[in-house]
Amino acid sequence: TARNLFLLPGDGIGPEAMGEVRKIIAYMNEVMNAGFVTDEGLVGGSAYDAHGAAISEGDMQKALAADAVLFGAVGGPKWDSVPYEVRPEAGLLRLRKDLQLFANLRPAICYPALASASSLKPELVEGLDILIIRELTGGVYFGEPKEIIDLGNGQKRGIDTQVYDTYEIERIAGVAFEMARTRQNRVCSMEKRNVMKSGVLWNQVVTETHKAKYSDVQLEHMLADAGGMQLVRQPKQFDVIVTDNLFGDMLSDVAAMLTGSLGMLPSASLGAPDPKTGKRKALYEPVHGSAPDIAGKGIANPIAMIASFAMCLRYSFNLVKEADNLEKAIANVLDKGIRTGDIMAEGCTKVGTTDMGDAILAEFKAL
Amino acid sequence: TARNLFLLPGDGIGPEAMGEVRKIIAYMNEVMNAGFVTDEGLVGGSAYDAHGAAISEGDMQKALAADAVLFGAVGGPKWDSVPYEVRPEAGLLRLRKDLQLFANLRPAICYPALASASSLKPELVEGLDILIIRELTGGVYFGEPKEIIDLGNGQKRGIDTQVYDTYEIERIAGVAFEMARTRQNRVCSMEKRNVMKSGVLWNQVVTETHKAKYSDVQLEHMLADAGGMQLVRQPKQFDVIVTDNLFGDMLSDVAAMLTGSLGMLPSASLGAPDPKTGKRKALYEPVHGSAPDIAGKGIANPIAMIASFAMCLRYSFNLVKEADNLEKAIANVLDKGIRTGDIMAEGCTKVGTTDMGDAILAEFKAL
Ligand SMILES: CC(C)[C@H](C(=O)O)[C@@H](O)C(=O)O
Ligand SMILES: CC(C)[C@H](C(=O)O)[C@@H](O)C(=O)O
Repeated sequence: TARNLFLLPGDGIGPEAMGEVRKIIAYMNEVMNAGFVTDEGLVGGSAYDAHGAAISEGDMQKALAADAVLFGAVGGPKWDSVPYEVRPEAGLLRLRKDLQLFANLRPAICYPALASASSLKPELVEGLDILIIRELTGGVYFGEPKEIIDLGNGQKRGIDTQVYDTYEIERIAGVAFEMARTRQNRVCSMEKRNVMKSGVLWNQVVTETHKAKYSDVQLEHMLADAGGMQLVRQPKQFDVIVTDNLFGDMLSDVAAMLTGSLGMLPSASLGAPDPKTGKRKALYEPVHGSAPDIAGKGIANPIAMIASFAMCLRYSFNLVKEADNLEKAIANVLDKGIRTGDIMAEGCTKVGTTDMGDAILAEFKAL
Repeated sequence: TARNLFLLPGDGIGPEAMGEVRKIIAYMNEVMNAGFVTDEGLVGGSAYDAHGAAISEGDMQKALAADAVLFGAVGGPKWDSVPYEVRPEAGLLRLRKDLQLFANLRPAICYPALASASSLKPELVEGLDILIIRELTGGVYFGEPKEIIDLGNGQKRGIDTQVYDTYEIERIAGVAFEMARTRQNRVCSMEKRNVMKSGVLWNQVVTETHKAKYSDVQLEHMLADAGGMQLVRQPKQFDVIVTDNLFGDMLSDVAAMLTGSLGMLPSASLGAPDPKTGKRKALYEPVHGSAPDIAGKGIANPIAMIASFAMCLRYSFNLVKEADNLEKAIANVLDKGIRTGDIMAEGCTKVGTTDMGDAILAEFKAL
């Protein structure tokens, strides 16, 4: 049976990075009979230029129908002053919301070959392997009211609303505990219960979910500000971190930067399993942005996009061996000293986007 | 004329740290004729134990009447399950709100003698000197509604509200630009305008304030998540950072940890100048917490509390020379290799709380 992939390369370096994933898909179809069927759409600034919206209705339908969406990156100075409702990010936020992708998995791993690129002392990050589970369809990102009111007198009021219901916290906690069981079996939940009522509820529901169904997993609670500190102080103390949409945005970016491997980090955004088929809706995207300054030059690092495709193989198609091999291929290429400009180091060989993609594909074939 | 100080040592190591400030106050009164008059109250868990509230009405009145409040730290496991309204933090939040201390100044400096204690590579933090200006009386900390609603069916809803009005953003931006003029003349404003309407307004008002009154200062805008990354990647790129209450909480903690000098960092929380006297209400507190695990052992590091008093001398009493000297005394003691346990390093002399306080006072006397 066909495996339907919907590709949304987006803006900036997105299309270049996606091109390297295409090669891997083609190879897997030809030689491994993987049966991927791909379609492609526009998102972000490029969708705005074509349709006046950050994603068209037609492309939304295709995203909803696909087995998995591969997403590049959105945004750039060209669209910095388009109206709020059609800004490039709106396309990504709508995909997350309408596909109900509530669980964002962000691994922060440190590739051994890149440990020295971290701002942290190498002994603090060597072997680092954290999985941040960020709630992605709730909180202050989507709560209403969300508006700017004119109060008269030259005064305006900006309002955003942080809202979490029990079931939203329960299901993301469930994902964190399940993932922990496949790893070191430890979860750290982060909120600001000393200041936020949503944090009080978050803390309670995580605690109850743990007690009811996952008491075999080790659970710790940490205030989100202290969590940010601890990520910098001693990142290896963490296994799985579970947190809300906004704290997850901040903390996963800090964690990504710690690894020194920012251009390398993938993410997966998953929905609930379908009650009939057991399948989850899913979107895979690199953690890095659209990097407009280097777009179109053929020098972007495609590794995060390729690693996102590896997560897709694992979580959407249960192609575990293939996912393992693709990740191994990336590590092998790095071990051989092949580098794009962003991760270049002394004694290594500098290559462009397509050469990096080719090198990874060659390793993948050989495994 | 008398200089009225209201001391709120609080819980945990707060009282021990405050004791060392008392010695400096006594010396300045005796020898320098500084005219400090001190009174003392309870806050946090110790206030709850005495009055059933995180701060009593009487102590609130004293705080409102004082020229400056010196605050230690609050909280500890003993009070982890007291009701939300009377939790230790509520005392601090009420002080901030009722004294209208909207401007929180958090210097993140790296003491040269401690650069090697940072998790970051020394070259990234040596000479680091950032000033984070955090809005302290608005945003999601105080916005209404802030509640947990019972929805029935076993479902609850936790709500917090992020609210910012034009005037609140204007006045904190003003503080940031004014402070920048006394430093490197650069301000970086951080928000999430791509997701939050309050962020859109924040960005607009900072931009307009800059244009209208501070166009001599260099202004940059950064998304708060990217800001967290950049703090880890290249912290020395920043001079003054201005941001909202919640982002300020997260980002200032990350910045504090970068310096490797967490136990050393002070903060000042300032109100608006009184239209008649020009005086600002003010509260000074260390960035570290109450550290209940080491409380009462005589080993706590009093430097952050003493450095907070130095900020008090500078901002509340315009005793600039005395403030400079007190800060210099701290640096000199560190240069001599005198260390409390939390910052102990090879070849240094380990001392307790009172010996550290005495050493700083001796240096201060000698300057
Ligand atoms: C692009 C932006 C809307 C997005 C977010 O804030 O979630 C990004 O920062 C991310 O982390 O995926
Ligand atoms: C104690 C707590 C309420 C407080 C805050 O969140 O503001 C603290 O973390 C701080 O940064 O001063």
